Amino acid sequence: MADGDQVSSPARAPAIILVAPQMGENIGAAARAMANFRLTDLRLVAPRDGWPSKKAKAAASGATGIIDEVRVFETTEQAIADLNFVYATTARIRDLPKPVVGPREAATDLRARGGKGQATGILFGRERWGLTNEEVALADVILTYPVNPKFASLNIAQAVLLIAYEWMASGLDGALPTRTALPELDHSPASKEHLIGLMQHMEKALDPTGYFRTPDMRPTMVQNLRAILQRAGFSRDEIDALHGVIGAFERLQGKPGGESSGG
Amino acid sequence: MADGDQVSSPARAPAIILVAPQMGENIGAAARAMANFRLTDLRLVAPRDGWPSKKAKAAASGATGIIDEVRVFETTEQAIADLNFVYATTARIRDLPKPVVGPREAATDLRARGGKGQATGILFGRERWGLTNEEVALADVILTYPVNPKFASLNIAQAVLLIAYEWMASGLDGALPTRTALPELDHSPASKEHLIGLMQHMEKALDPTGYFRTPDMRPTMVQNLRAILQRAGFSRDEIDALHGVIGAFERLQGKPGGESSGG
Repeated sequence: MADGDQVSSPARAPAIILVAPQMGENIGAAARAMANFRLTDLRLVAPRDGWPSKKAKAAASGATGIIDEVRVFETTEQAIADLNFVYATTARIRDLPKPVVGPREAATDLRARGGKGQATGILFGRERWGLTNEEVALADVILTYPVNPKFASLNIAQAVLLIAYEWMASGLDGALPTRTALPELDHSPASKEHLIGLMQHMEKALDPTGYFRTPDMRPTMVQNLRAILQRAGFSRDEIDALHGVIGAFERLQGKPGGESSGG
Repeated sequence: MADGDQVSSPARAPAIILVAPQMGENIGAAARAMANFRLTDLRLVAPRDGWPSKKAKAAASGATGIIDEVRVFETTEQAIADLNFVYATTARIRDLPKPVVGPREAATDLRARGGKGQATGILFGRERWGLTNEEVALADVILTYPVNPKFASLNIAQAVLLIAYEWMASGLDGALPTRTALPELDHSPASKEHLIGLMQHMEKALDPTGYFRTPDMRPTMVQNLRAILQRAGFSRDEIDALHGVIGAFERLQGKPGGESSGG
Protein backbone atom coordinates (compact mmCIF):
# COMPACT_ATOMS: atom_id res chain seq x y z
CA MET A 1 0.00 0.00 0.00
CA ALA A 2 1.35 3.39 -0.94
CA ASP A 3 0.49 5.43 2.11
CA GLY A 4 2.21 8.50 0.75
CA ASP A 5 -0.18 9.02 -2.14
CA GLN A 6 -1.86 12.33 -1.52
CA VAL A 7 -4.57 13.85 -3.60
CA SER A 8 -2.08 16.66 -4.23
CA SER A 9 0.49 14.40 -5.88
CA PRO A 10 -0.28 14.55 -9.59
CA ALA A 11 -0.04 10.88 -10.47
CA ARG A 12 -0.42 10.31 -14.17
CA ALA A 13 -3.89 8.89 -14.73
CA PRO A 14 -4.49 5.70 -16.75
CA ALA A 15 -5.85 5.77 -20.29
CA ILE A 16 -9.14 4.02 -20.93
CA ILE A 17 -8.97 1.98 -24.13
CA LEU A 18 -12.19 0.63 -25.64
CA VAL A 19 -11.45 -2.14 -28.10
CA ALA A 20 -13.87 -2.34 -31.03
CA PRO A 21 -16.80 -0.70 -29.24
CA GLN A 22 -20.06 -1.24 -31.07
CA MET A 23 -22.41 1.43 -29.77
CA GLY A 24 -21.76 5.14 -29.61
CA GLU A 25 -23.99 5.34 -26.54
CA ASN A 26 -21.55 3.17 -24.62
CA ILE A 27 -18.59 5.28 -25.66
CA GLY A 28 -20.38 8.39 -24.44
CA ALA A 29 -21.43 6.77 -21.18
CA ALA A 30 -17.84 5.66 -20.60
CA ALA A 31 -16.63 9.22 -21.17
CA ARG A 32 -19.17 10.48 -18.68
CA ALA A 33 -18.13 7.88 -16.11
CA MET A 34 -14.50 8.96 -16.58
CA ALA A 35 -15.28 12.65 -16.13
CA ASN A 36 -16.94 11.97 -12.80
CA PHE A 37 -13.71 10.58 -11.45
CA ARG A 38 -11.04 12.68 -13.14
CA LEU A 39 -9.96 10.41 -15.96
CA THR A 40 -9.43 12.17 -19.30
CA ASP A 41 -7.55 9.98 -21.79
CA LEU A 42 -10.05 7.94 -23.84
CA ARG A 43 -8.81 5.84 -26.76
CA LEU A 44 -10.80 3.77 -29.23
CA VAL A 45 -9.64 0.83 -31.31
CA ALA A 46 -11.63 0.43 -34.54
CA PRO A 47 -15.06 1.63 -33.36
CA ARG A 48 -17.70 -0.26 -35.36
CA ASP A 49 -19.67 2.80 -36.42
CA GLY A 50 -16.71 5.05 -37.08
CA TRP A 51 -15.71 8.30 -35.45
CA PRO A 52 -16.81 10.96 -34.58
CA SER A 53 -20.15 9.74 -33.29
CA LYS A 54 -23.19 11.87 -32.58
CA LYS A 55 -24.58 9.20 -30.30
CA ALA A 56 -21.40 9.16 -28.27
CA LYS A 57 -21.43 12.92 -27.91
CA ALA A 58 -25.08 12.94 -26.82
CA ALA A 59 -24.53 10.16 -24.27
CA ALA A 60 -21.44 11.88 -22.89
CA SER A 61 -23.83 14.47 -21.51
CA GLY A 62 -21.39 17.30 -20.96
CA ALA A 63 -18.16 15.33 -20.89
CA THR A 64 -17.44 16.80 -24.29
CA GLY A 65 -13.84 17.63 -23.47
CA ILE A 66 -13.10 13.93 -23.27
CA ILE A 67 -15.04 13.13 -26.45
CA ASP A 68 -13.29 15.89 -28.39
CA GLU A 69 -9.88 14.58 -27.35
CA VAL A 70 -10.56 10.92 -28.16
CA ARG A 71 -7.84 9.23 -30.16
CA VAL A 72 -8.76 6.45 -32.58
CA PHE A 73 -6.40 3.62 -33.52
CA GLU A 74 -6.61 0.80 -36.00
CA THR A 75 -5.12 -1.84 -33.74
CA THR A 76 -4.82 -2.47 -30.03
CA GLU A 77 -1.03 -2.62 -30.39
CA GLN A 78 -1.03 0.95 -31.71
CA ALA A 79 -3.40 2.14 -29.00
CA ILE A 80 -1.06 1.00 -26.24
CA ALA A 81 2.22 1.71 -27.99
CA ASP A 82 3.19 4.63 -25.73
CA LEU A 83 2.13 2.96 -22.47
CA ASN A 84 4.42 1.33 -19.93
CA PHE A 85 1.94 -0.91 -18.15
CA VAL A 86 -1.43 -2.22 -19.26
CA TYR A 87 -4.38 -3.94 -17.60
CA ALA A 88 -6.94 -6.02 -19.49
CA THR A 89 -10.45 -6.36 -18.09
CA THR A 90 -12.12 -9.73 -18.39
CA ALA A 91 -15.44 -11.03 -17.10
CA ARG A 92 -14.05 -14.44 -16.29
CA ILE A 93 -10.58 -15.48 -15.29
CA ARG A 94 -8.86 -17.13 -18.21
CA ASP A 95 -6.21 -19.71 -18.43
CA LEU A 96 -3.47 -17.22 -19.07
CA PRO A 97 -0.21 -16.93 -17.14
CA LYS A 98 -0.89 -13.45 -15.77
CA PRO A 99 -1.62 -11.90 -12.41
CA VAL A 100 -5.33 -11.29 -11.75
CA VAL A 101 -6.50 -8.47 -9.48
CA GLY A 102 -9.70 -6.65 -8.53
CA PRO A 103 -10.39 -2.97 -9.19
CA ARG A 104 -9.16 -1.77 -5.82
CA GLU A 105 -5.75 -3.35 -6.12
CA ALA A 106 -5.55 -2.25 -9.74
CA ALA A 107 -6.29 1.36 -8.84
CA THR A 108 -3.70 1.37 -6.07
CA ASP A 109 -1.11 -0.06 -8.42
CA LEU A 110 -2.04 2.34 -11.24
CA ARG A 111 -1.69 5.31 -8.93
CA ALA A 112 1.69 4.11 -7.65
CA ARG A 113 2.90 3.64 -11.21
CA GLY A 114 1.47 6.99 -12.28
CA GLY A 115 3.29 8.61 -9.40
CA LYS A 116 6.54 7.24 -10.79
CA GLY A 117 5.81 8.69 -14.20
CA GLN A 118 4.73 5.42 -15.84
CA ALA A 119 2.11 5.68 -18.57
CA THR A 120 -0.65 3.16 -17.89
CA GLY A 121 -3.86 2.03 -19.51
CA ILE A 122 -6.81 -0.32 -19.15
CA LEU A 123 -8.27 -2.33 -22.00
CA PHE A 124 -12.04 -2.96 -22.20
CA GLY A 125 -13.49 -5.39 -24.71
CA ARG A 126 -16.29 -5.16 -27.23
CA GLU A 127 -19.85 -5.37 -25.93
CA ARG A 128 -20.69 -8.94 -26.81
CA TRP A 129 -17.64 -11.00 -26.21
CA GLY A 130 -15.02 -8.85 -24.57
CA LEU A 131 -11.35 -9.07 -25.42
CA THR A 132 -9.82 -11.87 -27.46
CA ASN A 133 -7.09 -13.96 -25.88
CA GLU A 134 -4.60 -12.24 -28.16
CA GLU A 135 -5.68 -8.85 -26.85
CA VAL A 136 -5.50 -9.97 -23.24
CA ALA A 137 -2.05 -11.33 -23.96
CA LEU A 138 -0.89 -7.78 -24.73
CA ALA A 139 -1.57 -6.73 -21.14
CA ASP A 140 0.57 -7.12 -18.05
CA VAL A 141 -2.20 -7.87 -15.58
CA ILE A 142 -5.80 -9.07 -15.77
CA LEU A 143 -8.41 -6.93 -14.06
CA THR A 144 -11.61 -8.65 -13.03
CA TYR A 145 -14.60 -7.52 -10.95
CA PRO A 146 -15.99 -9.27 -7.89
CA VAL A 147 -19.46 -9.70 -9.38
CA ASN A 148 -22.15 -12.14 -8.40
CA PRO A 149 -21.33 -15.29 -10.39
CA LYS A 150 -25.06 -15.91 -10.82
CA PHE A 151 -25.63 -12.52 -12.41
CA ALA A 152 -22.58 -10.99 -14.02
CA SER A 153 -23.68 -8.38 -16.52
CA LEU A 154 -21.61 -5.25 -16.14
CA ASN A 155 -21.66 -3.22 -19.30
CA ILE A 156 -18.62 -1.33 -20.54
CA ALA A 157 -19.60 2.00 -19.04
CA GLN A 158 -20.24 0.37 -15.65
CA ALA A 159 -16.88 -1.38 -15.73
CA VAL A 160 -15.21 1.93 -16.60
CA LEU A 161 -17.18 3.66 -13.84
CA LEU A 162 -16.00 1.23 -11.17
CA ILE A 163 -12.32 1.43 -12.02
CA ALA A 164 -12.55 5.22 -12.40
CA TYR A 165 -14.20 5.42 -8.98
CA GLU A 166 -11.45 3.28 -7.48
CA TRP A 167 -8.85 5.45 -9.19
CA MET A 168 -10.25 8.58 -7.57
CA ALA A 169 -10.71 6.85 -4.20
CA SER A 170 -7.10 5.65 -4.29
CA GLY A 171 -6.00 9.27 -4.44
CA LEU A 172 -8.04 10.44 -1.50
CA ASP A 173 -5.73 8.72 0.95
CA GLY A 174 -8.32 8.11 3.60
CA ALA A 175 -9.99 11.44 3.02
CA LEU A 176 -13.27 10.27 1.58
CA PRO A 177 -15.76 13.02 2.30
CA THR A 178 -16.63 12.43 5.87
CA ARG A 179 -18.01 14.86 8.35
CA THR A 180 -18.61 12.95 11.52
CA ALA A 181 -18.39 9.57 13.09
CA LEU A 182 -21.18 7.14 12.59
CA PRO A 183 -23.46 6.35 15.51
CA GLU A 184 -22.59 3.49 17.80
CA LEU A 185 -23.23 0.11 16.31
CA ASP A 186 -24.22 -1.70 19.45
CA HIS A 187 -27.00 0.67 20.32
CA SER A 188 -29.78 -0.59 18.11
CA PRO A 189 -32.08 2.18 16.87
CA ALA A 190 -35.79 1.50 16.64
CA SER A 191 -37.41 1.03 13.25
CA LYS A 192 -38.35 4.24 11.47
CA GLU A 193 -42.00 3.43 11.92
CA HIS A 194 -41.59 3.75 15.68
CA LEU A 195 -39.43 6.83 15.44
CA ILE A 196 -41.93 8.56 13.17
CA GLY A 197 -44.70 7.54 15.55
CA LEU A 198 -42.88 9.33 18.36
CA MET A 199 -42.39 12.42 16.22
CA GLN A 200 -46.06 12.52 15.35
CA HIS A 201 -47.11 12.01 18.96
CA MET A 202 -44.94 14.89 20.09
CA GLU A 203 -46.20 17.19 17.35
CA LYS A 204 -49.81 16.37 18.11
CA ALA A 205 -49.26 16.99 21.81
CA LEU A 206 -47.58 20.30 21.10
CA ASP A 207 -50.31 21.63 18.82
CA PRO A 208 -52.69 22.79 21.58
CA THR A 209 -49.84 24.35 23.56
CA GLY A 210 -49.14 27.12 21.07
CA TYR A 211 -45.55 25.91 20.69
CA PHE A 212 -45.90 26.22 16.93
CA ARG A 213 -46.56 29.93 16.98
CA THR A 214 -48.21 30.19 13.57
CA PRO A 215 -49.21 27.70 10.89
CA ASP A 216 -46.45 29.16 8.72
CA MET A 217 -43.78 28.38 11.27
CA ARG A 218 -44.97 24.88 12.01
CA PRO A 219 -43.22 23.02 9.16
CA THR A 220 -39.78 24.41 9.99
CA MET A 221 -40.24 23.86 13.71
CA VAL A 222 -41.43 20.31 13.08
CA GLN A 223 -38.41 19.66 10.93
CA ASN A 224 -36.06 20.95 13.60
CA LEU A 225 -37.67 18.78 16.26
CA ARG A 226 -37.54 15.76 13.98
CA ALA A 227 -33.87 16.33 13.34
CA ILE A 228 -33.21 16.23 17.08
CA LEU A 229 -35.19 13.04 17.61
CA GLN A 230 -33.64 11.45 14.54
CA ARG A 231 -30.10 12.30 15.55
CA ALA A 232 -30.56 10.86 19.02
CA GLY A 233 -31.01 7.38 17.54
CA PHE A 234 -33.51 6.22 20.17
CA SER A 235 -34.04 2.52 20.73
CA ARG A 236 -37.47 0.96 20.87
CA ASP A 237 -37.45 0.97 24.68
CA GLU A 238 -36.43 4.60 24.79
CA ILE A 239 -39.19 5.54 22.38
CA ASP A 240 -41.77 3.75 24.52
CA ALA A 241 -40.57 5.67 27.56
CA LEU A 242 -40.78 8.97 25.71
CA HIS A 243 -44.32 8.21 24.61
CA GLY A 244 -45.08 7.91 28.31
CA VAL A 245 -43.59 11.31 29.00
CA ILE A 246 -45.55 13.00 26.23
CA GLY A 247 -48.70 11.16 27.28
CA ALA A 248 -48.32 12.52 30.81
CA PHE A 249 -48.18 16.06 29.52
CA GLU A 250 -51.16 15.46 27.25
CA ARG A 251 -53.33 14.06 30.00
CA LEU A 252 -52.79 17.10 32.15
CA GLN A 253 -53.65 19.56 29.43
CA GLY A 254 -56.81 21.39 30.19
CA LYS A 255 -57.17 20.10 33.71
CA PRO A 256 -57.87 23.12 35.95
CA GLY A 257 -55.21 23.94 38.47
CA GLY A 258 -52.59 21.79 36.85
CA GLU A 259 -52.87 19.25 39.64
CA SER A 260 -53.66 15.82 38.41
CA SER A 261 -54.43 12.65 40.18
CA GLY A 262 -52.34 11.00 37.50
CA GLY A 263 -53.14 7.74 35.82
CA MET B 1 -14.01 -2.45 13.59
CA ALA B 2 -15.46 -5.88 13.06
CA ASP B 3 -12.61 -7.83 11.52
CA GLY B 4 -14.61 -10.97 11.80
CA ASP B 5 -17.06 -10.15 9.03
CA GLN B 6 -16.55 -12.97 6.58
CA VAL B 7 -18.15 -13.38 3.22
CA SER B 8 -19.70 -16.48 4.70
CA SER B 9 -21.52 -14.54 7.41
CA PRO B 10 -24.94 -13.78 5.96
CA ALA B 11 -25.20 -10.12 6.83
CA ARG B 12 -28.62 -8.74 6.04
CA ALA B 13 -28.25 -6.66 2.88
CA PRO B 14 -29.54 -3.09 2.61
CA ALA B 15 -32.71 -2.21 0.76
CA ILE B 16 -32.40 0.17 -2.19
CA ILE B 17 -35.19 2.75 -2.09
CA LEU B 18 -35.79 4.92 -5.16
CA VAL B 19 -37.86 7.96 -4.25
CA ALA B 20 -40.20 9.17 -7.01
CA PRO B 21 -38.16 7.72 -9.89
CA GLN B 22 -39.21 9.19 -13.22
CA MET B 23 -37.96 6.76 -15.82
CA GLY B 24 -38.55 3.02 -15.93
CA GLU B 25 -35.20 2.59 -17.66
CA ASN B 26 -33.44 3.88 -14.57
CA ILE B 27 -35.35 1.54 -12.30
CA GLY B 28 -34.37 -1.39 -14.48
CA ALA B 29 -30.74 -0.29 -14.65
CA ALA B 30 -30.69 0.04 -10.85
CA ALA B 31 -32.06 -3.51 -10.51
CA ARG B 32 -29.39 -4.78 -12.83
CA ALA B 33 -26.66 -2.97 -10.90
CA MET B 34 -28.01 -4.53 -7.70
CA ALA B 35 -28.04 -8.05 -9.14
CA ASN B 36 -24.40 -7.79 -10.09
CA PHE B 37 -23.48 -7.29 -6.47
CA ARG B 38 -25.96 -9.42 -4.58
CA LEU B 39 -28.52 -6.85 -3.50
CA THR B 40 -32.14 -7.94 -3.86
CA ASP B 41 -34.55 -5.65 -1.97
CA LEU B 42 -35.71 -2.86 -4.30
CA ARG B 43 -38.42 -0.44 -3.13
CA LEU B 44 -40.06 2.40 -5.00
CA VAL B 45 -41.81 5.44 -3.61
CA ALA B 46 -44.47 6.83 -5.96
CA PRO B 47 -42.85 6.01 -9.32
CA ARG B 48 -43.96 8.69 -11.78
CA ASP B 49 -45.15 6.31 -14.49
CA GLY B 50 -46.73 3.75 -12.18
CA TRP B 51 -45.87 0.13 -11.64
CA PRO B 52 -45.28 -2.43 -13.11
CA SER B 53 -43.21 -0.92 -15.88
CA LYS B 54 -42.29 -2.60 -19.16
CA LYS B 55 -39.38 -0.25 -19.62
CA ALA B 56 -38.02 -1.17 -16.22
CA LYS B 57 -38.27 -4.86 -16.96
CA ALA B 58 -36.55 -4.46 -20.32
CA ALA B 59 -33.72 -2.40 -18.83
CA ALA B 60 -33.25 -4.88 -16.00
CA SER B 61 -31.89 -7.22 -18.62
CA GLY B 62 -32.26 -10.49 -16.77
CA ALA B 63 -32.52 -9.15 -13.22
CA THR B 64 -36.20 -10.01 -13.36
CA GLY B 65 -36.24 -11.61 -9.93
CA ILE B 66 -35.55 -8.20 -8.39
CA ILE B 67 -38.12 -6.45 -10.61
CA ASP B 68 -40.80 -9.03 -9.78
CA GLU B 69 -40.23 -8.56 -6.06
CA VAL B 70 -40.27 -4.75 -6.09
CA ARG B 71 -42.46 -3.19 -3.42
CA VAL B 72 -44.15 0.13 -4.10
CA PHE B 73 -45.05 2.65 -1.38
CA GLU B 74 -46.94 5.92 -1.37
CA THR B 75 -44.61 7.74 0.97
CA THR B 76 -40.96 7.54 1.93
CA GLU B 77 -42.02 7.11 5.56
CA GLN B 78 -43.89 3.94 4.64
CA ALA B 79 -41.01 2.64 2.55
CA ILE B 80 -38.58 2.83 5.47
CA ALA B 81 -41.04 1.93 8.25
CA ASP B 82 -39.51 -1.49 8.95
CA LEU B 83 -35.89 -0.32 8.76
CA ASN B 84 -33.60 0.41 11.69
CA PHE B 85 -30.97 2.52 10.01
CA VAL B 86 -31.20 4.56 6.83
CA TYR B 87 -28.74 6.37 4.56
CA ALA B 88 -29.75 9.19 2.20
CA THR B 89 -27.65 9.85 -0.91
CA THR B 90 -27.08 13.46 -1.86
CA ALA B 91 -24.96 15.06 -4.56
CA ARG B 92 -23.88 17.93 -2.38
CA ILE B 93 -23.38 18.15 1.34
CA ARG B 94 -26.26 20.03 2.88
CA ASP B 95 -26.51 22.06 5.97
CA LEU B 96 -28.12 19.31 7.99
CA PRO B 97 -26.89 18.04 11.35
CA LYS B 98 -26.06 14.54 10.14
CA PRO B 99 -22.94 12.49 9.64
CA VAL B 100 -21.69 12.42 6.04
CA VAL B 101 -19.72 9.47 4.69
CA GLY B 102 -18.53 8.06 1.39
CA PRO B 103 -19.64 4.75 -0.12
CA ARG B 104 -16.82 2.71 1.34
CA GLU B 105 -17.50 3.64 4.93
CA ALA B 106 -21.22 3.32 4.33
CA ALA B 107 -20.81 -0.21 3.00
CA THR B 108 -18.63 -1.22 5.92
CA ASP B 109 -21.16 0.16 8.36
CA LEU B 110 -24.11 -1.40 6.53
CA ARG B 111 -22.46 -4.79 6.60
CA ALA B 112 -21.65 -4.51 10.28
CA ARG B 113 -25.24 -3.50 11.04
CA GLY B 114 -26.59 -6.25 8.79
CA GLY B 115 -24.46 -8.74 10.68
CA LYS B 116 -26.16 -7.66 13.88
CA GLY B 117 -29.59 -8.17 12.35
CA GLN B 118 -30.38 -4.51 11.80
CA ALA B 119 -32.58 -3.77 8.78
CA THR B 120 -30.94 -1.04 6.69
CA GLY B 121 -31.73 0.91 3.55
CA ILE B 122 -30.40 3.59 1.23
CA LEU B 123 -32.55 6.37 -0.22
CA PHE B 124 -31.91 7.65 -3.75
CA GLY B 125 -33.65 10.77 -5.05
CA ARG B 126 -35.58 11.50 -8.21
CA GLU B 127 -33.60 12.07 -11.39
CA ARG B 128 -33.67 15.83 -11.64
CA TRP B 129 -33.35 17.19 -8.18
CA GLY B 130 -32.60 14.35 -5.83
CA LEU B 131 -34.12 14.09 -2.37
CA THR B 132 -35.91 16.94 -0.62
CA ASN B 133 -34.57 18.15 2.69
CA GLU B 134 -37.56 16.52 4.38
CA GLU B 135 -36.63 13.17 2.86
CA VAL B 136 -32.99 13.52 3.82
CA ALA B 137 -34.14 14.39 7.33
CA LEU B 138 -35.68 10.92 7.63
CA ALA B 139 -32.26 9.30 7.32
CA ASP B 140 -29.59 8.73 9.95
CA VAL B 141 -26.56 9.38 7.76
CA ILE B 142 -25.85 11.16 4.49
CA LEU B 143 -24.04 9.22 1.79
CA THR B 144 -22.15 11.21 -0.78
CA TYR B 145 -19.74 10.22 -3.54
CA PRO B 146 -16.22 11.55 -4.03
CA VAL B 147 -16.89 12.81 -7.54
CA ASN B 148 -15.00 15.41 -9.51
CA PRO B 149 -16.54 18.72 -8.40
CA LYS B 150 -16.13 20.04 -11.94
CA PHE B 151 -18.14 17.20 -13.42
CA ALA B 152 -20.53 15.53 -11.04
CA SER B 153 -23.18 13.72 -13.02
CA LEU B 154 -23.74 10.27 -11.60
CA ASN B 155 -27.14 8.97 -12.55
CA ILE B 156 -29.25 6.88 -10.20
CA ALA B 157 -28.19 3.53 -11.60
CA GLN B 158 -24.53 4.51 -11.36
CA ALA B 159 -24.95 5.65 -7.76
CA VAL B 160 -26.67 2.35 -6.96
CA LEU B 161 -23.93 0.46 -8.78
CA LEU B 162 -21.16 2.06 -6.74
CA ILE B 163 -22.71 1.40 -3.35
CA ALA B 164 -23.69 -2.14 -4.41
CA TYR B 165 -20.10 -2.74 -5.50
CA GLU B 166 -18.83 -1.45 -2.17
CA TRP B 167 -21.36 -3.63 -0.38
CA MET B 168 -20.03 -6.73 -2.09
CA ALA B 169 -16.41 -5.64 -1.64
CA SER B 170 -17.02 -5.09 2.07
CA GLY B 171 -17.92 -8.77 2.37
CA LEU B 172 -14.74 -10.00 0.77
CA ASP B 173 -12.87 -9.50 4.01
CA GLY B 174 -9.47 -8.24 3.04
CA ALA B 175 -9.49 -9.66 -0.46
CA LEU B 176 -9.75 -5.97 -1.20
CA PRO B 177 -7.94 -3.51 1.03
CA THR B 178 -10.33 -1.44 3.10
CA ARG B 179 -9.89 1.71 5.10
CA THR B 180 -10.66 1.41 8.72
CA ALA B 181 -9.83 4.72 10.35
CA LEU B 182 -12.94 6.33 11.73
CA PRO B 183 -13.05 10.10 11.74
CA GLU B 184 -13.27 12.29 14.77
CA LEU B 185 -16.65 12.77 16.27
CA ASP B 186 -17.66 16.34 15.62
CA HIS B 187 -21.17 16.17 16.95
CA SER B 188 -20.31 17.78 20.23
CA PRO B 189 -22.44 16.84 23.24
CA ALA B 190 -23.33 19.67 25.61
CA SER B 191 -21.62 19.99 28.95
CA LYS B 192 -23.09 17.89 31.74
CA GLU B 193 -24.26 21.06 33.42
CA HIS B 194 -26.60 21.75 30.54
CA LEU B 195 -27.65 18.14 30.26
CA ILE B 196 -28.55 18.00 33.94
CA GLY B 197 -30.43 21.27 33.60
CA LEU B 198 -32.58 19.64 30.94
CA MET B 199 -33.16 16.58 33.11
CA GLN B 200 -34.25 18.72 36.03
CA HIS B 201 -36.52 20.80 33.86
CA MET B 202 -38.24 17.69 32.52
CA GLU B 203 -38.65 16.19 35.99
CA LYS B 204 -40.08 19.38 37.40
CA ALA B 205 -42.52 19.65 34.51
CA LEU B 206 -43.59 16.04 34.95
CA ASP B 207 -44.26 16.30 38.69
CA PRO B 208 -47.72 17.91 38.40
CA THR B 209 -48.78 15.48 35.66
CA GLY B 210 -48.80 12.41 37.85
CA TYR B 211 -46.20 10.72 35.62
CA PHE B 212 -44.29 9.66 38.72
CA ARG B 213 -47.07 7.55 40.16
CA THR B 214 -45.89 7.54 43.77
CA PRO B 215 -43.03 9.18 45.65
CA ASP B 216 -41.52 5.69 46.01
CA MET B 217 -41.39 5.14 42.29
CA ARG B 218 -40.02 8.56 41.42
CA PRO B 219 -36.27 7.88 41.92
CA THR B 220 -36.24 4.84 39.62
CA MET B 221 -38.31 6.57 36.97
CA VAL B 222 -36.08 9.63 37.13
CA GLN B 223 -33.06 7.44 36.70
CA ASN B 224 -34.54 5.75 33.63
CA LEU B 225 -35.38 9.08 32.02
CA ARG B 226 -31.94 10.42 32.77
CA ALA B 227 -30.35 7.38 31.14
CA ILE B 228 -32.29 8.07 27.94
CA LEU B 229 -31.34 11.74 27.82
CA GLN B 230 -27.73 10.90 28.64
CA ARG B 231 -27.43 8.22 25.97
CA ALA B 232 -28.79 10.54 23.27
CA GLY B 233 -25.74 12.80 23.59
CA PHE B 234 -27.65 16.02 22.91
CA SER B 235 -25.74 19.10 21.81
CA ARG B 236 -26.22 22.49 23.43
CA ASP B 237 -28.54 23.62 20.63
CA GLU B 238 -30.61 20.49 20.90
CA ILE B 239 -30.94 20.96 24.64
CA ASP B 240 -32.12 24.54 24.18
CA ALA B 241 -34.76 23.32 21.74
CA LEU B 242 -35.93 20.64 24.15
CA HIS B 243 -36.27 23.21 26.94
CA GLY B 244 -38.65 25.00 24.60
CA VAL B 245 -40.71 21.85 24.13
CA ILE B 246 -41.00 21.22 27.85
CA GLY B 247 -41.77 24.88 28.47
CA ALA B 248 -44.65 24.69 26.01
CA PHE B 249 -46.17 21.80 27.91
CA GLU B 250 -45.67 23.56 31.22
CA ARG B 251 -47.33 26.76 30.08
CA LEU B 252 -50.43 24.93 29.00
CA GLN B 253 -50.83 23.08 32.25
CA GLY B 254 -53.83 24.23 34.14
CA LYS B 255 -55.22 26.36 31.38
CA PRO B 256 -58.90 25.45 31.08
CA GLY B 257 -59.90 23.83 27.82
CA GLY B 258 -56.36 23.06 26.80
CA GLU B 259 -56.42 25.77 24.16
CA SER B 260 -53.72 28.33 24.52
CA SER B 261 -53.04 31.53 22.64
CA GLY B 262 -49.41 30.53 22.94
CA GLY B 263 -46.53 32.94 23.55
